[in-house]
Amino acid sequence: MFKTTVLPTPKFTKTVVQDNRTDGYWIETFWVDPNDKVPGLIGYGLATGDICIFDNPINGGPKATDGAGWRKITVKTFNSPVAVVTADCAGNCRKDIIACYDYGPSYLNCNQSGGNISWLENPGRQGPNGEVPGDWKMRYIGRWPAMHRLKAGYFTQKSILEVIAMPVVHGPQDIETPVPVILFQKPEKSLDAIEWTRSIVDDEHFSIIHDGVVKRFDGQNGRDSLFIASREGINWLYWENQEWKIEHINDGMPKEAGKDYYGSACVDVGKTIDDPAAYIATIDPFHGTTVTFLTKDKTGPVSSKWIRNVADVYGDPDQLKLTGTGPGHYVVTGDFDGDGVDECLVALFGPAPYEGVYYYKPIDLEKGVFAKWKVADEPAGRIAIGDFSGDGKLDFATIVYNVPLYYEGANPKIYLYSNDFCAAAYTPEPQVVSTVWGGEPLFYLPRPTEIKTPTTIPLMELAGYRIELEILPPNWKLTTLTADPIKVLFGALYDGSIVRRALNVPQYEKSDARLTGGPIETKKEGVIFLRFISTMDPSERNWKEAKDVPVKSLLEFSYQQLQLPAPLKFTRVDELAWGGGFPGVEFYNMSGIDFRFLDKTELVHVQFWTAAKDVNCGVHDHDDKIFLEVHLCLSEGTGNGGMWRVKPGVVVDPDHPNDVDPKDFITLPLAAGEQHGGMWDRDTYDKPMYRENGTPDYPWHKWQAGNTAESIDVWTAFEFNPKLDY
Amino acid sequence: MFKTTVLPTPKFTKTVVQDNRTDGYWIETFWVDPNDKVPGLIGYGLATGDICIFDNPINGGPKATDGAGWRKITVKTFNSPVAVVTADCAGNCRKDIIACYDYGPSYLNCNQSGGNISWLENPGRQGPNGEVPGDWKMRYIGRWPAMHRLKAGYFTQKSILEVIAMPVVHGPQDIETPVPVILFQKPEKSLDAIEWTRSIVDDEHFSIIHDGVVKRFDGQNGRDSLFIASREGINWLYWENQEWKIEHINDGMPKEAGKDYYGSACVDVGKTIDDPAAYIATIDPFHGTTVTFLTKDKTGPVSSKWIRNVADVYGDPDQLKLTGTGPGHYVVTGDFDGDGVDECLVALFGPAPYEGVYYYKPIDLEKGVFAKWKVADEPAGRIAIGDFSGDGKLDFATIVYNVPLYYEGANPKIYLYSNDFCAAAYTPEPQVVSTVWGGEPLFYLPRPTEIKTPTTIPLMELAGYRIELEILPPNWKLTTLTADPIKVLFGALYDGSIVRRALNVPQYEKSDARLTGGPIETKKEGVIFLRFISTMDPSERNWKEAKDVPVKSLLEFSYQQLQLPAPLKFTRVDELAWGGGFPGVEFYNMSGIDFRFLDKTELVHVQFWTAAKDVNCGVHDHDDKIFLEVHLCLSEGTGNGGMWRVKPGVVVDPDHPNDVDPKDFITLPLAAGEQHGGMWDRDTYDKPMYRENGTPDYPWHKWQAGNTAESIDVWTAFEFNPKLDY
Repeated sequence: MFKTTVLPTPKFTKTVVQDNRTDGYWIETFWVDPNDKVPGLIGYGLATGDICIFDNPINGGPKATDGAGWRKITVKTFNSPVAVVTADCAGNCRKDIIACYDYGPSYLNCNQSGGNISWLENPGRQGPNGEVPGDWKMRYIGRWPAMHRLKAGYFTQKSILEVIAMPVVHGPQDIETPVPVILFQKPEKSLDAIEWTRSIVDDEHFSIIHDGVVKRFDGQNGRDSLFIASREGINWLYWENQEWKIEHINDGMPKEAGKDYYGSACVDVGKTIDDPAAYIATIDPFHGTTVTFLTKDKTGPVSSKWIRNVADVYGDPDQLKLTGTGPGHYVVTGDFDGDGVDECLVALFGPAPYEGVYYYKPIDLEKGVFAKWKVADEPAGRIAIGDFSGDGKLDFATIVYNVPLYYEGANPKIYLYSNDFCAAAYTPEPQVVSTVWGGEPLFYLPRPTEIKTPTTIPLMELAGYRIELEILPPNWKLTTLTADPIKVLFGALYDGSIVRRALNVPQYEKSDARLTGGPIETKKEGVIFLRFISTMDPSERNWKEAKDVPVKSLLEFSYQQLQLPAPLKFTRVDELAWGGGFPGVEFYNMSGIDFRFLDKTELVHVQFWTAAKDVNCGVHDHDDKIFLEVHLCLSEGTGNGGMWRVKPGVVVDPDHPNDVDPKDFITLPLAAGEQHGGMWDRDTYDKPMYRENGTPDYPWHKWQAGNTAESIDVWTAFEFNPKLDY
Repeated sequence: MFKTTVLPTPKFTKTVVQDNRTDGYWIETFWVDPNDKVPGLIGYGLATGDICIFDNPINGGPKATDGAGWRKITVKTFNSPVAVVTADCAGNCRKDIIACYDYGPSYLNCNQSGGNISWLENPGRQGPNGEVPGDWKMRYIGRWPAMHRLKAGYFTQKSILEVIAMPVVHGPQDIETPVPVILFQKPEKSLDAIEWTRSIVDDEHFSIIHDGVVKRFDGQNGRDSLFIASREGINWLYWENQEWKIEHINDGMPKEAGKDYYGSACVDVGKTIDDPAAYIATIDPFHGTTVTFLTKDKTGPVSSKWIRNVADVYGDPDQLKLTGTGPGHYVVTGDFDGDGVDECLVALFGPAPYEGVYYYKPIDLEKGVFAKWKVADEPAGRIAIGDFSGDGKLDFATIVYNVPLYYEGANPKIYLYSNDFCAAAYTPEPQVVSTVWGGEPLFYLPRPTEIKTPTTIPLMELAGYRIELEILPPNWKLTTLTADPIKVLFGALYDGSIVRRALNVPQYEKSDARLTGGPIETKKEGVIFLRFISTMDPSERNWKEAKDVPVKSLLEFSYQQLQLPAPLKFTRVDELAWGGGFPGVEFYNMSGIDFRFLDKTELVHVQFWTAAKDVNCGVHDHDDKIFLEVHLCLSEGTGNGGMWRVKPGVVVDPDHPNDVDPKDFITLPLAAGEQHGGMWDRDTYDKPMYRENGTPDYPWHKWQAGNTAESIDVWTAFEFNPKLDY
């Protein structure tokens, strides 16, 4: 079931979103309207300063005539805008754009009075064809010189929008003073407010903050947290017990004498199915050269340290001097191949050959091993991710980095790279898991209500039946089932007028376990059941001895290293630890299969039995076992074998229960495909009644083989968990 | 390389250590003398009170005549001894025995003045045949009523022995008051001391402590820590910042109204190769029924919560009422199958069928999935583990539980179960790991000094050679090598009188890379090298075009899901991104293979090239690359091709370096199997000299194909990392 398949080579098809630009810096995923089918983009350059949205043509409306039809709307022109972040500031459920600007020519020569932050109100799709007007209304939030990155979230509480603003440096010509990380909180009257209230997250620890990323973890009570990439490496900031906590993750690039740039510059966090922060991807240091993956080395029950794995060092000799000239400018994680594990994209702005986008996939995080592919050749300064194609797969878009006087990439454009290789987006659905359990297979099953698609698990061929486990989700219809016996283990299966449940055959009665052959369906509970698919004419089921009964395992364990310690076979019970009371008796057992739910709750244990003509399988009342047992006959080889129970009122000597006279039994012969209702006593709610020692209260009973034919009986016993609500 | 193989079925051979006992409670691994080959055992019963050691017959000396020859020595007889722990109290490097006794008839009726703790001085092997005398000298440590478990270690510091003593209850008829967990510290004059100094670890949190386990983790600065199993479930106690910290791991069995027993009773911690506390095995509650495995569910970058996975519920109906009657009494973890991952043994004392020892192996800890086998049928109250057979594999020993008036197991004996299925004990040795890296294979290699056995990795068949990577550990000899070319990548290979290193061919010179065919050896540095095993007569290496050169990958990735995105092949360089300067030139590249160390440090990047007659492969000086390049010729198809370098003093126009007149070059033709010394300039220590831009200083040079034959040249380029000390 957990087969290894070769990973597809990641492939993305390039189209042009915007063909002619004079510069390029930022690209961001942007939902113009929350009801849009797909997201659009925000893109702009530092020099031109036109904050533009690019309306995704898949959302309809007029298309642009150039490129792939993405319509450009200029929403505001700023002097040197650096970062944007999108969040609903107006309170109308649409994303507005928050921007910082008035940066100045460079961070060393930043505008001492600049670093303004304002929000631009998204007017929504107002035109007859859903056009969005330009020139959005602007309102002020606050400022600090050299403002460089904005992050929106709910950091100190989970009710009111907050924006964390990070200047790259403290001010002009000052790369040493720790910068203020400022939290702005959205005011109630955001449309009228003069500015937003602010507080300092930290102004003691971080210098040259290049970027950060917001992540929300289960352990944080719904609050967001922030990873910062700065000269101090990677630090994780989160609010707890009414204060900001800083967890130092890694130093990043070690400090070298005489070099201004060390630590880290870019950061994102990669998740796996089991770990929301399985690895951290970085580029080190500022406008860096070095792609690293931080992975965890466990040091104790609840502790681990982060190991820095250098993946690649990119750059020409000048860049390798670490003077802040590139080429690495952005990392972002996302599940592009749909396996539930985040890959990582790294943007290189150039020069060649250090340009394009590399795709890294974690292969073995315990060893810090990744695989790498190049997925875009055009130089990229930044990456936006989203399902821009609307096909459920994660795409990405890039902008060529062109900041005049710093690094001027040729032919600045905006590109879309559409995911061409992912089979389907990840949809977590619990899977059946099987293991070895003391000589038996043990299956952990999802509850039917947890799945959306049916599952079939072959178990074995036995006595001319192919036995399969089937799980059907709620409200499912099947028309292909034949008139074979089935046994519901959990939930309910509707077969025309009959509702079949695990334990709904009345006490002392029997019922035909065969389907009618017509359509079946499930309702809100779904169903787990065994199918006994007949592969043999009933007349051929005339085995004289247990060893003649065909048995073949169809088991495939979830883990390829597992196998049963011995093959499935019938064993005469006098060879079993408990079978001393049956010396020489032709009474055989094959145990068995255990079924539990994925949360480890016991569902049912199944065993198989045979008995020859006239064999008494032992009168008992299950006073040593806590289970609800029912039987399904697979072959009535002895003609009239089945369940015998002692008549009410007959006194049974518990030390010699087999002394009861045959005439003192009530018989219930079972033919192939027939099951009986469990014999335990029930209360008026049909729930089991228990003895003082906690065992369900059964009458004395046994399987008694018949005496009208010469072959052997074969039957199945189901031992259900009384604590479960079937 | 990481092939899935089916797990062996765990098998242990039973022998009897002690045949006839009247009761049984404790068993413990005990090294009689630190120089013994194998450990022995301590065993005793609560009622008889004879603390006995069982001397392992493998250590020599007189053997007992019964059973497997384990000689019994009674070291002290106590009234109701409960626990022992072994540690060096006398200061002579031998393990002494610390015991608690005077328990009383039961914990409810415990001796209010009892719970004494003393240590018994191990006299060592004094007899002529190594016999150990009995009746050991006893010295007092301290006491508390109902003293029940002792743990030795270094808990609050790492210099002086400490013993943590845990009473099961606070005193007679009192199961509610939290018990004092007491730390005793060994006095300097332990032979003369009246008692040991004591302190309270905790007397607020724990009731009905049944057991605990000591673990030392890397994160604890050499200090031990303690897991306690009590009604409060599993708690981890450790000393940090001069105080005891308690980390609550799990509640264990939930509290039910009217029941005295809940929480946990037994605990051990399982490690994997990557996690020292990957899972916690428990039996819940006191004299319990329920085996659980606690596994981690990650909730954030540095946080996880423990998930309680119920593995099995054992017990007859009375035991399932949770009144403290069993059958589960002990869990212990250990790596029995030698894969570096701990399995877990669970002891069940009975009654049948709830008796024996079950072996659980973690299969998928992220899902909480284990596999289970039964490995001992005899009832077991407690388990001792160790390599009692002296074969390097982990064995275990058990004692039948027989405590009069509580639970009296039949035929109390001590059994040894010898490991019969483990191939070899786990010896961690770093393995080569390979992944895909942007179209190339990337190999992470152990340093030769990290390995003890040689490794050979097939890479490819190319140009009539089979190319293999070989790593030899230090001080290794090989006599089987033929006279094929090799290229040392790291370390040194001694071939008779020649020492071959990665970069030790002198500048501008050439050298024969072929071995002499005699024995080779490594010294203290070991070696990593490529072998070019000739599979073709040199006369057949006469390809007219690059496409004729045979190329076949022999790569097997460490991870079965990986494959190269495209097959290995030669590509004409004018089809490559950088090859625009070679339009139509019969000059081909096949890139390549990257080799790094497991710590991710770059070792060398290897490429392959071909050129046809008269082809100028381009004059260059590597001013854009930081590597140390050398070449090894595989076929001199053009007759006299090889390295040409511009004569000293000739002025080269950096914009037109190919304009240099052929007569201004110094030529160094290379025949198949010849390599040249890297052309970069070196200082007087033979270290590379660098240009201002950080690149090694090379003269202008090129590969120039020859003009005396009509086939093509094939050669290999090695790009070494200048920062590495080869």
